[in-house]
Amino acid sequence: MATPGPTVTAPPHRALWPVPDGWAVEILDQTRLPHERVVRRLETVDDVAEAIRTMRVRGAPLIGIAAAYGLALALRRDPRDPALDAAVTLLAATRPTAVNLRHALEDVQAHVRPLPAAARAAAAVARAEALLADDLAINYAIGEHGVSLLRDVAARVARPVNVLTHCNAGWLATAGWGTALAPVYRAHADGVPLHVWVDETRPRMQGALTAWELAQDGVPHTVVADNAGGHLMQRGLVDLVLVGTDRTTAAGDVCNKVGTYLKALSARDTGVPFYAAVPGPSIDWRLREAASIPIEERDVAELVDVTGRAADGRIERVRVLPAGTSAANYAFDVTPARLVTGIITERGVCAASPEGLAGLYPERAA
Amino acid sequence: MATPGPTVTAPPHRALWPVPDGWAVEILDQTRLPHERVVRRLETVDDVAEAIRTMRVRGAPLIGIAAAYGLALALRRDPRDPALDAAVTLLAATRPTAVNLRHALEDVQAHVRPLPAAARAAAAVARAEALLADDLAINYAIGEHGVSLLRDVAARVARPVNVLTHCNAGWLATAGWGTALAPVYRAHADGVPLHVWVDETRPRMQGALTAWELAQDGVPHTVVADNAGGHLMQRGLVDLVLVGTDRTTAAGDVCNKVGTYLKALSARDTGVPFYAAVPGPSIDWRLREAASIPIEERDVAELVDVTGRAADGRIERVRVLPAGTSAANYAFDVTPARLVTGIITERGVCAASPEGLAGLYPERAA
Repeated sequence: MATPGPTVTAPPHRALWPVPDGWAVEILDQTRLPHERVVRRLETVDDVAEAIRTMRVRGAPLIGIAAAYGLALALRRDPRDPALDAAVTLLAATRPTAVNLRHALEDVQAHVRPLPAAARAAAAVARAEALLADDLAINYAIGEHGVSLLRDVAARVARPVNVLTHCNAGWLATAGWGTALAPVYRAHADGVPLHVWVDETRPRMQGALTAWELAQDGVPHTVVADNAGGHLMQRGLVDLVLVGTDRTTAAGDVCNKVGTYLKALSARDTGVPFYAAVPGPSIDWRLREAASIPIEERDVAELVDVTGRAADGRIERVRVLPAGTSAANYAFDVTPARLVTGIITERGVCAASPEGLAGLYPERAA
Repeated sequence: MATPGPTVTAPPHRALWPVPDGWAVEILDQTRLPHERVVRRLETVDDVAEAIRTMRVRGAPLIGIAAAYGLALALRRDPRDPALDAAVTLLAATRPTAVNLRHALEDVQAHVRPLPAAARAAAAVARAEALLADDLAINYAIGEHGVSLLRDVAARVARPVNVLTHCNAGWLATAGWGTALAPVYRAHADGVPLHVWVDETRPRMQGALTAWELAQDGVPHTVVADNAGGHLMQRGLVDLVLVGTDRTTAAGDVCNKVGTYLKALSARDTGVPFYAAVPGPSIDWRLREAASIPIEERDVAELVDVTGRAADGRIERVRVLPAGTSAANYAFDVTPARLVTGIITERGVCAASPEGLAGLYPERAA
């Protein structure tokens, strides 16, 4: 599925890693960030499913990898078909929108189903490790291809390049480096001056994760309300929009965190280039119609309750809407290909069109 | 300035009222809503300026009225020119974007400056009362004109009319009825079935005020993240967008709460009509260029700190971004006239264009 580059430097940060004895994975619990850095050990497929569902582990690429480890953990307890089937069903139901989860479950199953029970757990671990390594290589390559877009702007303007991003598509959302943020980290490491406008990304505030990530590496950034991006673009304060994806159709329609479509519209209206960083495994080759992507509706508690640090230092959850207020929480939207300037993949940058994607992935588009 | 209608029913709700002895005004403290209903008494011009600055009293029409009462309170203490000048300077500096504030200060000054000191306070109170009455009449008329748009939709669809609104342009933002919400209340009272999608409107969460208002009158509504509106429109779940304004240019460019522009873009992209409810006093006839509207930048604490009700019932403020996170807080944006389907004023509905507005206000456009 992936096309690993020749040599990939080890990433400086990880949000998920297998423990040395192989009988668990550990994650940075993203429901506790940015307020506290808590490592959580996942020992069973139920632990993994809970972590994905509650977004302790999140980001389309990373939940695919986590699900692969989840199958491995399930098979270690019981390698027979009914247990495998149950684990697949459990994990597939956690998050409907990101296609990586389905791809990862299909990948692991394709490898382990032909094997005798005794060999399955080890094979599943090997596949999970391979998916993790593939994702690292993919993201590193996205960084290499995407950084040229930032260099091009830097060559034109005598000030830092202003990037706007939505949600978190950094190393917290992937095996490492990130997707949309991979070019940003690469540019920063290479000395390209840049500044990132970070959409706070209600309701889950993944912008706080992005700001926390960027702060770790000293990348200049400013958090803004999701409402502000259009104004920033109208005032000429954004050079480039860079976002990730949870599923991109073969036609180049980009499904991503809800609100992405609005930023694509203002980018188009103001002449700002809008790029999506799309790892190969995030492309759903079966889909031509974006309208058939299932859009996850999450618990309205995410909208109604906000977690933060109280004056006395405690982490507290407060209710921002009165009890009984009716609310709805659509988690994703689709940005039509016509609004996407280009797609950055591990194989290069292409047009957001059937032809553009087919040119980079001829073996999939046939 | 206003064109009062013949008979205006007393509004069922008010957010500001003079106390019977005339030596103070009382307001519903909107920084405490929707969590608690607290009435606050403003006795001095400093009280009024603080209340406007901190948004205890808010909404373009209402801050104009509050400022007029502020001048009256100042003149009661000291009716001489230096005190008047100081009060005008103090009040004018509280909020830069809404033009109503400037209009109200100019209106009161025009009436009181020619008068002897002893007559000034009473004249200022009379003008404040007149502005309040004018605003009521204007909003009532906006409701009358706007309701026909909702009736037209209702006649076409066999389900409740879906309106989307941003920020709060209801009775909390005005002398009564509201601007964008006036047609909604009128339709609801007349039995037109409707449902309102309420943008939560980060960072200040004025959507919580709108939801609270609508709940008082039993108007069906659902609060959504600001990010969701585009998706709702793509799915055909919005029939009409209705917003207020803080300042509209003579060309029909609508300055309103930040994020309005993004909703106008998605409305245009999906074929949803986008209307602004614009009271005459919100039109800045001097301005042809929207770019010259001053866009208020507010304290980033509004973005960083969120107030809500903790599990134990206390109202608590929590910090959602780590200490030291860089943030920016632009409070308004401008929706270009080309994206506005029509403008609802107290004189009728017109095109968002110099000709459209001039047709309704020939005496101002000359």
